[in-house]
Amino acid sequence: MEKLNILFFVSFLLFLPLTIFSQKKSVDLIVQNGTVVTMDANRRVIENGAVAVDKDAIVAVGTAAEISQQFKAKQTIDATGKVIIPGLINTHTHLPMVLFRGIADDLDLQEWLTKFIFPAEAKNVTEDFVRVGTRLGLAEMIRGGTTTFCDMYYFEDAIADETFKAGVRGVLGETLIDFPAPDNKTFADAKIYAEKFVKKWQGNALITPAIAPHAPYTVSEEHLIEAKNLADKLDAPLVMHLAEAQSETDFVMKTKGMRSIAYVNKIGFLSERLIAAHVIQATDEELAILKKFNVGIAHNPQSNMKLAAGVAPVPQMLKMDLAVGLGTDGAASNNDLSLWEEMDTAAKLHKLISGDPKVLTAQQAFEMATIRGARALHLEKQIGSLETGKRADIVILDFDSLNQTPFYNVYSHLVYATKASDVRTVIINGKIVMRDKRLLTLDENAIKKDANAYRQKIINSLSK
Amino acid sequence: MEKLNILFFVSFLLFLPLTIFSQKKSVDLIVQNGTVVTMDANRRVIENGAVAVDKDAIVAVGTAAEISQQFKAKQTIDATGKVIIPGLINTHTHLPMVLFRGIADDLDLQEWLTKFIFPAEAKNVTEDFVRVGTRLGLAEMIRGGTTTFCDMYYFEDAIADETFKAGVRGVLGETLIDFPAPDNKTFADAKIYAEKFVKKWQGNALITPAIAPHAPYTVSEEHLIEAKNLADKLDAPLVMHLAEAQSETDFVMKTKGMRSIAYVNKIGFLSERLIAAHVIQATDEELAILKKFNVGIAHNPQSNMKLAAGVAPVPQMLKMDLAVGLGTDGAASNNDLSLWEEMDTAAKLHKLISGDPKVLTAQQAFEMATIRGARALHLEKQIGSLETGKRADIVILDFDSLNQTPFYNVYSHLVYATKASDVRTVIINGKIVMRDKRLLTLDENAIKKDANAYRQKIINSLSK
Repeated sequence: MEKLNILFFVSFLLFLPLTIFSQKKSVDLIVQNGTVVTMDANRRVIENGAVAVDKDAIVAVGTAAEISQQFKAKQTIDATGKVIIPGLINTHTHLPMVLFRGIADDLDLQEWLTKFIFPAEAKNVTEDFVRVGTRLGLAEMIRGGTTTFCDMYYFEDAIADETFKAGVRGVLGETLIDFPAPDNKTFADAKIYAEKFVKKWQGNALITPAIAPHAPYTVSEEHLIEAKNLADKLDAPLVMHLAEAQSETDFVMKTKGMRSIAYVNKIGFLSERLIAAHVIQATDEELAILKKFNVGIAHNPQSNMKLAAGVAPVPQMLKMDLAVGLGTDGAASNNDLSLWEEMDTAAKLHKLISGDPKVLTAQQAFEMATIRGARALHLEKQIGSLETGKRADIVILDFDSLNQTPFYNVYSHLVYATKASDVRTVIINGKIVMRDKRLLTLDENAIKKDANAYRQKIINSLSK
Repeated sequence: MEKLNILFFVSFLLFLPLTIFSQKKSVDLIVQNGTVVTMDANRRVIENGAVAVDKDAIVAVGTAAEISQQFKAKQTIDATGKVIIPGLINTHTHLPMVLFRGIADDLDLQEWLTKFIFPAEAKNVTEDFVRVGTRLGLAEMIRGGTTTFCDMYYFEDAIADETFKAGVRGVLGETLIDFPAPDNKTFADAKIYAEKFVKKWQGNALITPAIAPHAPYTVSEEHLIEAKNLADKLDAPLVMHLAEAQSETDFVMKTKGMRSIAYVNKIGFLSERLIAAHVIQATDEELAILKKFNVGIAHNPQSNMKLAAGVAPVPQMLKMDLAVGLGTDGAASNNDLSLWEEMDTAAKLHKLISGDPKVLTAQQAFEMATIRGARALHLEKQIGSLETGKRADIVILDFDSLNQTPFYNVYSHLVYATKASDVRTVIINGKIVMRDKRLLTLDENAIKKDANAYRQKIINSLSK
């Protein structure tokens, strides 16, 4: 008997450590059994991998076996046969303009703006319009696997409110412009609105409020400096169109005697706060200036093509390791919010323009839509890759649709074969916002109904 | 009594014609209540329209009220809120190459061909490979609303067999080339195969068999003339790559002392039988030669971009009213079979290249994918528009997805906002091949299984 007791005691001592080590940590969610494309510094791709999420953060990334050994989850999502990627980042859009999708196409920029967009905006853009358009755009973006976007529009406080309610991440810039806008009739009013807006949202888990002077040709030198000072004072990002077209270069050259990037540099506007959209009119020397200030860049290939604006020197930007991401621009000039098409187009466009089919590989295009896009928004410490400590912005893709069959190379398939319709489940900041293609934070039918009501109003307003 | 009899007789005489006129003609199928985009000569768009189909043909197109007055149908499809278009036409592909989708990307054409595609083809392309690849490609094309395609590959008889069984329309060219091919080791053998193939399929309702000399740089002058003579003798179309790249121009210039189009003209190769793919290296004078012979042209914008081959002078082709359609090229160099993306890319690419955003409008892009594509294949009397007497190749599109909301202009939405995933129902030659997104003539799961088996074989063959 005593012998047995001793045996029992010895057994207990032996197994105690094992019991302690096998104590699994409890987490909120594990996405498991899929191919994890981490986009970490080593660009690890983990077959039969898993991502453990607790609250809003990624707590571990590894093989499904490793993760299941260490963690037990309140909820699991099985991703067998699927691919798990960081949420896509749309570095430039004007989200509510989705209500103007296809209202006017195949026109000169000036004709398009002055005959259609400006009149349509003047007659229709209210806070309610902005809310309806934002919800529509958010729903389309979630369906396409976009988890973060950088916006520039009016009534940005309403955009922030809708974005936060839908659980989407955004760098949202209130527009400052030197003519009466739908929300603020003067630059001074817009500055007051912007300051209040930034202070209200700063510190929010999803929303990074920003100041968005429209462009060097629509905002005076004095006002650009005011915008910059306001951003510095508030410690907020600056969002601006920069070096977008030859017409801008000509205008700035004529009024300031130099090209756009040189001009904004000279007036002290550049800093690492800046997220500059387009950057088409840029020499190597000008790119070096942007590099020096760690300016973020949003490349919008489809919009630039459609408006015949030109081609940004992206291969050179990549060579110089600039922080350049991809953007759709507004859906009035694209006409969708799919980053899948932007990746595909970016990779193909720069091969054509450079005459070199090795330029801008599939992997580089996918980097622009994820980790490099995060750098463009100065959020690379929070998002852009699946790594321990980052926010849990995770997208699960079907990878067996006909257009994805057969499958050889994950980056090739992500960029050249995957479509928005292949996105299955979307998680932002640890919260599931789309599960098995069903939106959980937005009412798709109500959104369509509201959008179609605006459609009729917009048509009526333009026929008057 | 007699009075009553007379009254009855008079009534009978009066109502007789009415009875006859109200006798509705019975037809097999009516697609009704949708917006019909006819692509007829007047480019009629019929709101609340309908298309009546009997056997393989369209017997009437009009408003739903007009059609229901004249016809009663054995079967109806309600297209309320949807858009009814002619089936899309893919004017250039190599369908079985879909099994090589993404096997190698971001490479020089020569490196891509010699290091990957040619070895992979030599080691893997059998009749069974071609059948599996064809079924996969057909399924993807049907899902994307493509009802007719022009092909050039090996074992074309097997491609024809699979295409006919799936109920898809094709102009299918057996390849003639001056080196050993997977199906025929010599040009002479290939000629014998091609003649037998053409004779077997000629007169088939869906299949137009064709002769496909590969390109001016892979087929000798003597053999080009032989191919032309064979096509003339058999009254069959000729399919060929022509003026595809600077390297071809250089080669033909070096060996023949002139550019490609001048060369094929000089040797008497050109005729209205020809369907020429790419046509990038073409001056206005060369385009005039193609116009004179009514040569069909397949423009493949995405493939040309990805391989950095250059840009075909499409705006000039349209100005000269050439028969130019759109093609995806093989999925190994695109990497999909979606004509929606080709339309979108074509419209945007030519705006960028010409610097004119008014060039290649949405309507012109949609014409290239339908009626002008039919002209490129010399089938404009049979397909390409929804008109009485034409074959019933009809596609029904969802038009209320998020990416299509709101809706202002039908051509803009077709080209810039609609995706392959918006295709709901597909009818070819009067037969429904996809209904409510379910394939009826192909087994999607079996296709994926077969394709994935080849994937493993291909990977193994390349690692040896």
